[in-house]
Amino acid sequence: MHIAILTFQGFNELDSLIALAVLNRVKREGWRVTLCCPEETVTSMNGVKVHAQSRIEDARHADAVIVGSGVQTRDVVGNRNLMDELRLDPSRQLLGAQCSGTLILAKLGLLGTVPACTDLTSKPWVQEAGINVLDQAFYASGNVATAGGCFSSQYLAAWIIASTEGIEAAQRAIHYVAPVGEKDEYVARVMKNIALYLAPASRDSGLRNG
Amino acid sequence: MHIAILTFQGFNELDSLIALAVLNRVKREGWRVTLCCPEETVTSMNGVKVHAQSRIEDARHADAVIVGSGVQTRDVVGNRNLMDELRLDPSRQLLGAQCSGTLILAKLGLLGTVPACTDLTSKPWVQEAGINVLDQAFYASGNVATAGGCFSSQYLAAWIIASTEGIEAAQRAIHYVAPVGEKDEYVARVMKNIALYLAPASRDSGLRNG
Repeated sequence: MHIAILTFQGFNELDSLIALAVLNRVKREGWRVTLCCPEETVTSMNGVKVHAQSRIEDARHADAVIVGSGVQTRDVVGNRNLMDELRLDPSRQLLGAQCSGTLILAKLGLLGTVPACTDLTSKPWVQEAGINVLDQAFYASGNVATAGGCFSSQYLAAWIIASTEGIEAAQRAIHYVAPVGEKDEYVARVMKNIALYLAPASRDSGLRNG
Repeated sequence: MHIAILTFQGFNELDSLIALAVLNRVKREGWRVTLCCPEETVTSMNGVKVHAQSRIEDARHADAVIVGSGVQTRDVVGNRNLMDELRLDPSRQLLGAQCSGTLILAKLGLLGTVPACTDLTSKPWVQEAGINVLDQAFYASGNVATAGGCFSSQYLAAWIIASTEGIEAAQRAIHYVAPVGEKDEYVARVMKNIALYLAPASRDSGLRNG
């Protein structure tokens, strides 16, 4: 299971790295989570330079892809070569988009007429792309999920874990990263956000991994 | 105002980068937040390689220091040269420690008899260092604060902003990063965690910033 987190120049650290850290709480052999970048290194909106763990051309072979957010997303969607290289496919991949990452899924035509979540800054751009933007943190339809507001990246990560490894694995991951004394509250809030959107099978035991 | 986030080899991405991103929501001239590392690059517990934005010897000159967490903290406290280089001073610096970072403050003798927060894994090591570990996410006494559980790094960041720029600035920062539809809830929870520990002046208007 390879989960690629698309991380572009000007990326938002919370959007890529909260998801990465939560997803890495799954300790199963073959479970691999990577920062997936268009170049060998990318620098965040606050000047943090990180090294790619996989490259853009790997995203199309990943089992799941999270599209991160950042301050240069409009440049990304305007870059035809980069967009052409993505070739994401919800028929065989779980796809999640965080904040302005939703604009990328929209421009790739992967949202169709499905409503979506994004952050308040990106909202007008996503609406301009013809998408009905919801006033909530998380929404999924089938294999495609979107989230709005940096900290909702934990919901995307939990949705991917619950969909593939089962709900208990997602709960364990969130329990671990939550503040001391607030762990049950954090787990409950995550489940409240994602439970509606899990297939009945994975709601019971994570049968997609079955 | 320079805030250095101590980030060692094997660091936990959530602990350093949630704090960094929240702190960077303050857009005041001269407000500078850096990943402060012992080497030019450090690699996280999940293989994410990042570049230092400042170096360990800069931490002693910073106005505030957050001690990050990671899987090699016991090596850090065993490294006399590294520990000697820190020279942190709560009489002139705000000091915050996240999870196993609390062990570093303890070993530097900066916690004294004050109780502290840490994560569940680090708890026995911090207790062994003679510290009374609290079953809560955040605690501060004067200029020294500690937090336990990765996501409580938002509380450390908010405490530093509230202590220097005022409560409203901290609320704005958290509001921005919180999930859509849950922003008021997130702001309220942060304030519930930190309000008790703010000096009366900063509780009103952030007077430490004059």
